[in-house]
Amino acid sequence: MESLTPHDIVILFFSLGILLALARVLGELAQHLHQPAILGELLAGILLGPTVLGNIAPQFNSFLFPSQGPCAIALDTITTLAVALFLLVAGIEVDLSTVWRQGQTGIKVGLAGIVLPFICGFGVAWLAPQSFGHPPEADKLIFSLFLATAMSITALPVIAKTLMDMDLYRSDLGMVVVSAAIFNDLTGWIVFAVLLSLMGKSPLGNHNSIALIIVLTLALAGIILTLGRWLIHKALPFVQAYTRWPGGELSFALILAFLGAALAEWIGIHAIFGAFLVGVAIGDSAHLRERTRVIIDQFVSFIFAPVFFASIGLKVNFFTHFNLWLVLLVLVIACSSKLAGSILGARWGAVPVRDAWAVGFAMNSRGAMEIILGLLALQAGIITHSLFVALVIMALITSLISGPMMRLVLRPAKRWRLHDMLTSKLFSRQLQAISRREVIREMAELVSAAAGLEPQIVEATVWEREEALSTGIGNGVALPHARIDGLRQSVIGVGISESGIDFDAPDDKLAHVIFLILTPKDDPGQQLDIAAELARKFRDQRMLDHVKRTRSFTDFLALMRASMH
Amino acid sequence: MESLTPHDIVILFFSLGILLALARVLGELAQHLHQPAILGELLAGILLGPTVLGNIAPQFNSFLFPSQGPCAIALDTITTLAVALFLLVAGIEVDLSTVWRQGQTGIKVGLAGIVLPFICGFGVAWLAPQSFGHPPEADKLIFSLFLATAMSITALPVIAKTLMDMDLYRSDLGMVVVSAAIFNDLTGWIVFAVLLSLMGKSPLGNHNSIALIIVLTLALAGIILTLGRWLIHKALPFVQAYTRWPGGELSFALILAFLGAALAEWIGIHAIFGAFLVGVAIGDSAHLRERTRVIIDQFVSFIFAPVFFASIGLKVNFFTHFNLWLVLLVLVIACSSKLAGSILGARWGAVPVRDAWAVGFAMNSRGAMEIILGLLALQAGIITHSLFVALVIMALITSLISGPMMRLVLRPAKRWRLHDMLTSKLFSRQLQAISRREVIREMAELVSAAAGLEPQIVEATVWEREEALSTGIGNGVALPHARIDGLRQSVIGVGISESGIDFDAPDDKLAHVIFLILTPKDDPGQQLDIAAELARKFRDQRMLDHVKRTRSFTDFLALMRASMH
Repeated sequence: MESLTPHDIVILFFSLGILLALARVLGELAQHLHQPAILGELLAGILLGPTVLGNIAPQFNSFLFPSQGPCAIALDTITTLAVALFLLVAGIEVDLSTVWRQGQTGIKVGLAGIVLPFICGFGVAWLAPQSFGHPPEADKLIFSLFLATAMSITALPVIAKTLMDMDLYRSDLGMVVVSAAIFNDLTGWIVFAVLLSLMGKSPLGNHNSIALIIVLTLALAGIILTLGRWLIHKALPFVQAYTRWPGGELSFALILAFLGAALAEWIGIHAIFGAFLVGVAIGDSAHLRERTRVIIDQFVSFIFAPVFFASIGLKVNFFTHFNLWLVLLVLVIACSSKLAGSILGARWGAVPVRDAWAVGFAMNSRGAMEIILGLLALQAGIITHSLFVALVIMALITSLISGPMMRLVLRPAKRWRLHDMLTSKLFSRQLQAISRREVIREMAELVSAAAGLEPQIVEATVWEREEALSTGIGNGVALPHARIDGLRQSVIGVGISESGIDFDAPDDKLAHVIFLILTPKDDPGQQLDIAAELARKFRDQRMLDHVKRTRSFTDFLALMRASMH
Repeated sequence: MESLTPHDIVILFFSLGILLALARVLGELAQHLHQPAILGELLAGILLGPTVLGNIAPQFNSFLFPSQGPCAIALDTITTLAVALFLLVAGIEVDLSTVWRQGQTGIKVGLAGIVLPFICGFGVAWLAPQSFGHPPEADKLIFSLFLATAMSITALPVIAKTLMDMDLYRSDLGMVVVSAAIFNDLTGWIVFAVLLSLMGKSPLGNHNSIALIIVLTLALAGIILTLGRWLIHKALPFVQAYTRWPGGELSFALILAFLGAALAEWIGIHAIFGAFLVGVAIGDSAHLRERTRVIIDQFVSFIFAPVFFASIGLKVNFFTHFNLWLVLLVLVIACSSKLAGSILGARWGAVPVRDAWAVGFAMNSRGAMEIILGLLALQAGIITHSLFVALVIMALITSLISGPMMRLVLRPAKRWRLHDMLTSKLFSRQLQAISRREVIREMAELVSAAAGLEPQIVEATVWEREEALSTGIGNGVALPHARIDGLRQSVIGVGISESGIDFDAPDDKLAHVIFLILTPKDDPGQQLDIAAELARKFRDQRMLDHVKRTRSFTDFLALMRASMH
């Protein structure tokens, strides 16, 4: 049996390790800068691929990522699996029942948000194919249809993430956007699947019966989303009842995804379409357990997806194929048609003007889906490298601006995250103080600079509050606090006391961890939210022991973040 | 860039889906019969490989699993990744500190359990290489060293599982066995790694400097287990503090495993040795969180490991290469030398005779490790297919008998599992009764046959107990019960009442789920254990709502099992 040689295995693991490491580091960095992880992951591939490393050290580049032979096949195998699993997860996130519940408005936004960009995309590509670098050997109709689809796609995962960050996911506005995006996603992929089948690259080999392939594609989607969905819903309790938990459910999902992928590829549309449909069918069942969803999601989001997105950068030279004119053209057409379509759809569904604009910017983000679509078209020879690069940049820019633009339109209350407020400067591992009054003085000195106040003022205000009602909440934690007039954002100081300090807690225990919390006076809710989150963290009594054992701020932060879910 | 064709992708997903599906189904079946899952997983490969499918339908077999070309490389890539990740998990399970805590006895058992089989294995192979089908082209010294190592290996995962099943994992006996197995595992793999390097198949290419490679191997193990372990322990809090949780930790583990694998393969020992060492180093850190461990473990145990073990059956014809004489020879030498060595070691460490025998049978199980070792030797051309088949059978038989033999020697109390006691015959979805007395009568009729008693007797005994103190435990659950003289094993009947029945619960709620529990009189603890586990399950108030919504026994069982962890 043909197999990898020891040399191939060295390359396989080495390149995989490097690719994953850089993708994850840059992905984390992007997220720290409040940007989507995919930005960093793509950048990792661009750095390791022909664009940068291939220029600086071409030999090392082709040693790490040979373009021919078993190693190329091995990497292609892994990215093929990775993208199928990524689409499985994307499918699981699609909740068809949301669309039904949300009703007409979502469908109106989704419909108008597809139709207008589709017409614009088709029109410009048909009238001026040269402007988009139409490859002479590609069919003009297929090229135009592709550009039409590319303009009308929407990235559900990016949208969901942005809405969650803004605390809008469960709001009416959020539900309109999500249901529209689901409708859009599903329609877009079916259109693209039909398009792929039109290219006649099907292993069925029957180039004549394009009509048959279109019928098969629609039949596949129809059957998986109705009969398949029903069968999966019926089968899941059996899987849970008679197999190891949660391993049984996990394998069940992956087996179906693999078989769905094989079937879709065999029909002549891409494998990932099958995995996506299976994901939708599985995710729709109320029987699917959260735990299984989390395991698949974590493994795919943090291992497979970074490898896949980084591998894109290995395939294309983003420097030589960068064409500013093309990028701007694609960007303008994509944004204007999508915004116009979605906003018109929202107004049609009686959404207020300001909210309609927010819906428009949300729907405008293309994210990973556009990139995957572009890659498939590139591999099929429908588009040039330059157009692919322009589509990737458009996908990134539309995703990057969607959150900020929505914030600009809606001006929501800023969301706080506890771990963003904890910093090493506001942390004291060993409090010297031994009384309540002294602790408050010591910690007031710690935090006063960050709050832009005199230590005496902080101390006096906190002590005043403390005297009114002591702030020991039990389990070894105290939360002295004050609401400060004119404070721009909340400040939290953390102090740990070895000996413990009496904060008059209901359980009579001494406080070993003291959070001194200053919040803006005009946002009274925030004080309560912070206190509630801290109390939740320390509900488990072991938390206190863990904190006592920390030796540095990093240890402490690790503990606070890792206990977050 | 060379890539998979659409046809290759169809085959890849189809073969992967079929392989995983059959491996998981047979693996689950094996576990239902209280056998290790690997038995079923191997069988899946044997059925789909040359042994069975290749005989019945050779064309379909070579269509699904082509032995040449991109598809063969693709499958090889996946199994290479799979076995590396399996060894990462095996390494994470190794807890070095156990060995230090347990001290001398474990090391004595481990040492004697290696030395004796090693000497026996080497001796017989050296004196009668033909009996073991020594391939003429293979070096006799290397062949003998391999057989010596193969005889002395021990499978920590199998042992850990068996001990857990017998509730002995945390006992003194269990700790001796586990620490001996860890010592044995680590030594065995280092010896084997050196052996692989002796074969001079290193990509370093320097065939002359065998000594150098041995030094590098030992240095790799030494550095990863000391400096690497320390660095990982220091780095984990940073990873937890500054990356997404738990994705950051997950990627961190896999990146290190990939790089470790590349390094080991580059030195000239197998990649999996590097992944194993990295696993040991990571698993040893107290900072590694349970959640990360679980995600890796689930994904590997239920996706990658089944694919890997099934793929073994694809490589070898287990029928034509089955040689009864060789199987018996390997089995006798392996069992006798390992049992003798381990028992002598245990006696040396002052373990009582009966326990020493139990230690011997525990250490005798070879499981997955032996199979992986054999596969590497087969691929390196050190051993013949017949010897490989004999080793696989020996590994399976020693693993299968270790649990039963330990039970025979130790005669432990039988372990009960709640979900094994729940059956559809003892389940009533709609109780007719509306009073406590009537419910007990109705459920006594349900369970009496299973207990081998008259319904009236069950009813009278349970009611007597119920009158003494009512058994409503709150949250809508009641646990009427009785201890029955001469009952061989516990019987649990389940009844669900729509209207609810007053069982005088502390929270004054009506009971909707009634478990009628009969336990043997001579095992008073079991009644309490069952009651405690049921109470734990229903502590979450949503559990009652879920139960009310079930429509069949399967739904109910799914709920009870899936809430188990």
